[in-house]
Order: sequence, then C-alpha cells, then structure tokens
Amino acid sequence: MKEINEIRNGDICSPSGFKACGIKAGLKKSGKADMSLVYSETECIASGLFTSCRFQAAPVKYCRNILAKKRTFNAIIINSGNANACTGTMGYQNSVKMAKLTSKSLGIHKENVFVCSTGRIGVQMPMDIIESGIIKAVKALSPQGGKSASEAIMTTDTFPKKIAVEFKAGSKNIRIGGMAKGAGMIAPKLNPLHATMICILTTDAFVSKEYLDKVLFNCSEKSFNRISVDGDTSTNDTVLILANGLAGNKEIKSILSSEGKKFAEALECAMLYLAKQIVLDGEGATKFVTVKVEKARNINDAQNCARTIADSLLCKTAWFGCDPNWGRILAAAGRSNAIFNPDKVDLYFDDQPAVQNGMASNVPEKVLAKILAKKELTIKLILNAGKSNGEVWTNDISYDYVKINANYHT
Amino acid sequence: MKEINEIRNGDICSPSGFKACGIKAGLKKSGKADMSLVYSETECIASGLFTSCRFQAAPVKYCRNILAKKRTFNAIIINSGNANACTGTMGYQNSVKMAKLTSKSLGIHKENVFVCSTGRIGVQMPMDIIESGIIKAVKALSPQGGKSASEAIMTTDTFPKKIAVEFKAGSKNIRIGGMAKGAGMIAPKLNPLHATMICILTTDAFVSKEYLDKVLFNCSEKSFNRISVDGDTSTNDTVLILANGLAGNKEIKSILSSEGKKFAEALECAMLYLAKQIVLDGEGATKFVTVKVEKARNINDAQNCARTIADSLLCKTAWFGCDPNWGRILAAAGRSNAIFNPDKVDLYFDDQPAVQNGMASNVPEKVLAKILAKKELTIKLILNAGKSNGEVWTNDISYDYVKINANYHT
Repeated sequence: MKEINEIRNGDICSPSGFKACGIKAGLKKSGKADMSLVYSETECIASGLFTSCRFQAAPVKYCRNILAKKRTFNAIIINSGNANACTGTMGYQNSVKMAKLTSKSLGIHKENVFVCSTGRIGVQMPMDIIESGIIKAVKALSPQGGKSASEAIMTTDTFPKKIAVEFKAGSKNIRIGGMAKGAGMIAPKLNPLHATMICILTTDAFVSKEYLDKVLFNCSEKSFNRISVDGDTSTNDTVLILANGLAGNKEIKSILSSEGKKFAEALECAMLYLAKQIVLDGEGATKFVTVKVEKARNINDAQNCARTIADSLLCKTAWFGCDPNWGRILAAAGRSNAIFNPDKVDLYFDDQPAVQNGMASNVPEKVLAKILAKKELTIKLILNAGKSNGEVWTNDISYDYVKINANYHT
Repeated sequence: MKEINEIRNGDICSPSGFKACGIKAGLKKSGKADMSLVYSETECIASGLFTSCRFQAAPVKYCRNILAKKRTFNAIIINSGNANACTGTMGYQNSVKMAKLTSKSLGIHKENVFVCSTGRIGVQMPMDIIESGIIKAVKALSPQGGKSASEAIMTTDTFPKKIAVEFKAGSKNIRIGGMAKGAGMIAPKLNPLHATMICILTTDAFVSKEYLDKVLFNCSEKSFNRISVDGDTSTNDTVLILANGLAGNKEIKSILSSEGKKFAEALECAMLYLAKQIVLDGEGATKFVTVKVEKARNINDAQNCARTIADSLLCKTAWFGCDPNWGRILAAAGRSNAIFNPDKVDLYFDDQPAVQNGMASNVPEKVLAKILAKKELTIKLILNAGKSNGEVWTNDISYDYVKINANYHT
C-alpha cells in the first residue's frame, strides 16, 4: 500500500492556504524572473536550517534572529541575482528592510516575513529595484503561482525544482509542497543553529514547533546534507518550512507517533527529491553518481568516506571520461577519515565488482567501462570494518563545469 | 652574503659519489624512458617520508620496512608507468624482487636498495620488463646521469624537475641534489611513519640518522606538505634522501648547531624549489597561486584555511577565468576549520585590497581583474584572529585539467 502520493504538477501552493508568485524585479542582467514570494494568510509555525559556513549572508542572519524570537510567520520573500553576503551592517539592514517592505505590503506584522537571497557575493542590494519588486510580487500572489516562484529563484540552474506530496492522517489529507534552487556551490552542511541551495517547504499539517524542528533536521541529514556538486559550502544555504495547520489534523507532536512518522516520511520524500534534482542540475554535469560506503565502523566514517570520494577531482573527471579508474576511488577513500583495512575492501560499479580484497577483480575493463558510460550509476565501496552504511549523491566534472565557473562573475 | 648557492645545471649527481641514469625499460606505451636508478658506492644514511593515504603502494610498504630495519643503503630504483599500488601480496613480492634484482646487479646487500613506483594503480608489475630494465639501468649508471634520471620518473609531468645547491661547512663544501616528479594527484601529506609525488634527494654531507630524520620532516612540512594541485593524496608519495658523508665535514648531529641550521636551510631551499616546480607543472595549470593566510589563531587554522581555499573548485575555476570573485575565497575560508570573526577579515590580491572588514574594498574590479590575469599571483587572507601565518602553493583548474584526467586511463 502506497501511503505517500506525489501530486501531479504539485508545488508549494499545493497545501491548503498557500499563495506564491515569481516576478521580474530587474536584479538579473539577463532580464529573467528574480523575485519570489510565498504567503499563507493563516499564520504558520516555522522551522529553518542554515549554512554552517562562517561567513553567513545577511538574510541568513536575519532569518536566524526572527526564528529565535518568534513562533509564527506568514511569508518568505526570496530574490535571486544577489546573495547579500559579505555586505556588512548595510547588508543586514537591507534584509530587515526587505522584510519590512514585504510585511507592510501584505499588511502583516513586520517580523512575520523570512528573507532569502542568492546570487553574487559582496554586492549591496539595489534597494530601489527590491522595493518596486516587492510591491509587484505582493500584487502577483496567486494559488497558481508555485511554478513561477520555483523559476524565479534559479541562478545557474537549468530547470526549476518543485514537488508536492500528500498522505492521510486519520480522515484528513496532509500535503507538503516544496521548491529548491541550486546547481553550484553545493555541499550543504545544514545545521539547526546555523545550509547556496535554497529550499522552501510548505505544509498544511498541524504540527508542534518542537516536532517541526526535529523532523526538518532529521530529513535534511538524509537529503541535503548528503549531496555535493563541488564540495563548496555556500554563505546562503537555507531550508525553511512553513506549516499553517489548515489540514485540520490532530496536532503532530512526536517523531515516534504514527502520524509523526508518516509526516517525516513524506517530508523526507519531498526533500530527497529536491536534493537529487539539484545534483541532476549540477553545473555542467553529465552524470548522476550515487556513492555508497557500506560496512564502515560508524556512520561518520561512512559519510566522510563517501563525501571524500564524491568531492575528489580525480574521481569526478574520470567519471566524466567514462573511465573505470578505480584506483582514484580507493586513493580518495584512503585519505578520508575512515578507518579500515585496505586489504579487505571491495568496490562495485553497479552490480559488477571492480575490486575485491583491495585488488583488481577479474571483471574485464570493457564491462566496467560500459557501466561508467551510463548517465546514472552507483559506486559502492564496502569497507568490511563494521556495520554502518553511508551515501552521497554527486555528479561528474566536465568541460562545461569549468566554462560555467570561469565565466560566472563577468 | 649568500651562503647557499645553486649549482648551475645541478642534479642528484652533483654531490660527491653519486651516479644515476634514466633508461627505457618498456613500461610506457609511449616508449618514453621509464626507469631510473640512483647509486652511491659509499654506503649512505637514509631517511624517508611516505604518504598518509590508507592505501599504501607496495614499494611504500617495502621502503618503510627496510628503513625500520637497517641504517645504511646504496641505491634507489624507480619506475614510472605502473604504481604497484592495490596489488596485494604479489605486488609486495614484486617490490622485494625489484630490490633484490637491483642489489644483485650492483653487487651489494639485498636490502640496501629502495624501490619507488609511480603510474597506474591496480595493475601487477610486468616483471620480465622490470628485470631486463634493471640490468640495463645498472649498466647505464654514470656521474652524468642525473638529468636523464629526472626525466625517466615523469608521468603526466611536462618537464623534469631537478636542482642542486651547495654551501660551506667549515672548510668543506656540502652539496645537496634533488629531483622530483608529479603533476596530478598532488596533495602530499607526508608523514614520518607513513608522501604520487616522488622526490629523491642526495647529499655528500656527513650527518647522523636522527638529524637527517628531523631535518627531512621539518623541511617537508615547509615544502611538499604545503602544495596542492588537486587535493588528492596519492598511494605512492615518497621522499627519500641518501647521505653518503663524502664531503668530509664534521658530523652534523643537531638541528640547533650552526652547521645543522645551514644544512636545513639548504635542504629546504632545494625541496621548496622542487615542490613549487610540481605546482608549476600542475596538470593543465595556467597559473601559479600562492595562498597566504595570516594572523590566524594558530598554525593549524592558518594551514587548514589556506588549503581549503587552494582546493576549492569554485576558486580554482574563477582563477582560470581571471575572475576576481573574492566571494568564493571567503566562502571557502568560511567552511574551513579556522575560527575567526568574518567581519574582521581582509583579503588582498597581490598588493591590492579586495576585501576590508569582511566587505568589498573600494578598489575597482578592473584593477583586481588585472592581477587575476597574471601568470603568478598571491592571495593573502588576513583573519585578524591571532599571530600565526600559513601558506599553500597551488594552481588553477582549466579545460586541459579535465581533458588530461578524463583520458589518462584509456
């Protein structure tokens, strides 16, 4: 029995009571849409996770501050084209101003609005453009605006990333909507205190704040905290969820309750989908690679080893070249923090063993090369050092990656 | 007064009593030279540093074993074209056999020969080629063979790397010669216990074993342990030094003695030169970038922060694009282990401030872009968190890097 259903063409407006829009404020030279607004008239419980980078963008600082201070919120204003990071006191004041302008236009409490920014680091926000953009965005709000909102948050993304799922809680239908952006500077280390991917989630579930905090963190550990495009953690990574309670379910308070588990499963499903979409859209990527590390001493060893392989430049370029050069994978594992006996390691490309007991298997290179030529493959390293498994989703590094990133700024 | 002089066209045969050669054994498909031998008829004190990668190539294990067992040595046999890594028991036996064949041909004790290998991981050594190569190499030994030895150890290197320096110790002239190879899989973490760069050093100094161990480690901390091409640490990194005492100086026993300091300075000079040559020859590199981190809390913070910047894919591609995108540099610093106040950080491109107090300086982007267009530049990040300084030498990541590494194996 499938208990969680994906809603066809669903988005952040699929849960009851949410409106959204994406508009052109004028921040991007390209003239593409660059401002999104998400709004629930009914006040929402909220939870957020932010980057662990020591340089935290102004909107990240602002969101953390209001999350610490208040329990209810209505809206999230998001701009692309400018990260408002490394912009000092003026940058922070501009984030505050974005929130105030939005709340004023919406006619709500001034601290009921979250702010997210993504784009270039180190440039002050052009507040005249922002101001007129906000007025335009508030007017454009609509229950059909989820798709355009997911488009307006894009930077180097080549496609919008959105989803909605639903499940039954008793007699009530609970929905979760989500959108995300990100294609580069992707190695989120989301942290309850302190994630440039941005992910906005909405739900009509009635949940407690404490439950929401826990479940958001647990789900991000299994989704956004397991992806890497380039190993670079952003100044602006943010995951925010708004829960307006309009589904009318009995309040979900515990991650151990059956409804609590079901919501967690549905949220993980949505976040995992969005996280993998970011990897699929990784700058210049030609391949989606799942790196599994199994039978590690502990989960930290497993995740650290998987991430070291996923971030290895030599591995990523070999994958681009469809080259079953497993020596590079072992070398990367060998410099990770994981502790294991190198003579007991097995390595698989999909279902084919490339390495057995730390040495080449007898599978012909041709067979392995065929797997490496696939658009999607799994690399599974079995450490035989314990019982813990880990997983990271990543991609290859191509000529286009270099092109995109050697020319982004100018 | 310049106390250390570089010897014009010097190499590993510049110190008294050393012979060398580079020959074609037949390991490389290209037909290029692929085997080098370094030999001193006078027995030598030796010291070595090896990779900290958990996968250690067979020759690395063999060198560690004989270094732990014996105090005197005569020769180093080196092949390129095959790393003899991840080759199990047979791989180890083949390293032992290489040493035995060399010692037999030289007529010396069987454990007086070090073995180094570099090339593809995971393939067994073709021992017939090795055997005839060793016989050829022993016959080719010559006091003029230093240059050819430095050529035969190359893999993806585009030029040979060699140097010799000399200084006076009392009335005696002490010489240090060196050669190194490496262009990719370069992020050595050399360790007294357990460094695919290979660096072979020779000297006619009379030194104690304990002094030599200390000075080799100290100098590698300031040279090879401060370079990174791609952040990938090899299974085969090795630094070996042979000291035959033929200079006739009074034995150098202490790093605190004036002769001990002078030798250390000369050795550092040679190792630093070779380390920087590796970075200059980094696969596909168009730029040599010195990353300095100053005023850190401690040396670990300084080095970790500098290395995180040096290894950041987004920074390296921006440098290739001549893009003064300092946001990427700060973001990389922000995810390093260094602790500092982001609002107090300054960043310089050569002598021009790009960031002051965590924000954009008023230096026009054009001025910064001009510096980024140089073949050699210094990025200096001042954390203002303490008194410790660190430094890493690295390069950019270009289209050619991707090309070289997507096609190396096939």
